[in-house]
Amino acid sequence: MMVAWMNREALELTVEENRAVYWSRSRQKLWRKGEQSGHEQQLLELRLDCDNDVIILKVNQIGGLACHTGRASCFYRVLRDGQWQIVDRVIKDPQDIY
Amino acid sequence: MMVAWMNREALELTVEENRAVYWSRSRQKLWRKGEQSGHEQQLLELRLDCDNDVIILKVNQIGGLACHTGRASCFYRVLRDGQWQIVDRVIKDPQDIY
Repeated sequence: MMVAWMNREALELTVEENRAVYWSRSRQKLWRKGEQSGHEQQLLELRLDCDNDVIILKVNQIGGLACHTGRASCFYRVLRDGQWQIVDRVIKDPQDIY
Repeated sequence: MMVAWMNREALELTVEENRAVYWSRSRQKLWRKGEQSGHEQQLLELRLDCDNDVIILKVNQIGGLACHTGRASCFYRVLRDGQWQIVDRVIKDPQDIY
């Protein structure tokens, strides 16, 4: 669906508020996913990997789209014949989201 | 299943050899997944995210396990009541893998 960064506070708030909270490196601030778009991510499950540096969030994605391009997932391009081809459709126009 | 790093060469080799090749930061060298364990990852699909810094590999995981702990996935711990609990079983003893 998407990949983002967390710091300790983001992780603590994610657990506390039962919703995805990330750390925006570009804005250098906490980012409650959906705070602008309304497309929150309700937390269903948190998983940790074997060397303790990656967390997977299983979420209920409000609005059905996680990507700022208006798609369900940020991973909407597939490599075919040496080219990244868009294979997933825009569900909602970003201009209608933000 | 797992998360690892790639540099440009790792990505190029992944496409060229049709198998997962990563960049080991700890060893500072290319890492053909499965080169020691035999548990290669045959490439089925490559996807790129919206801001061009994360790639998802859809793979056929030889041996059915990707984690060095002998589990199918590195994400075998779930947060429950404030504790990381192991929820996925060891498929093969790591001592029998390496």
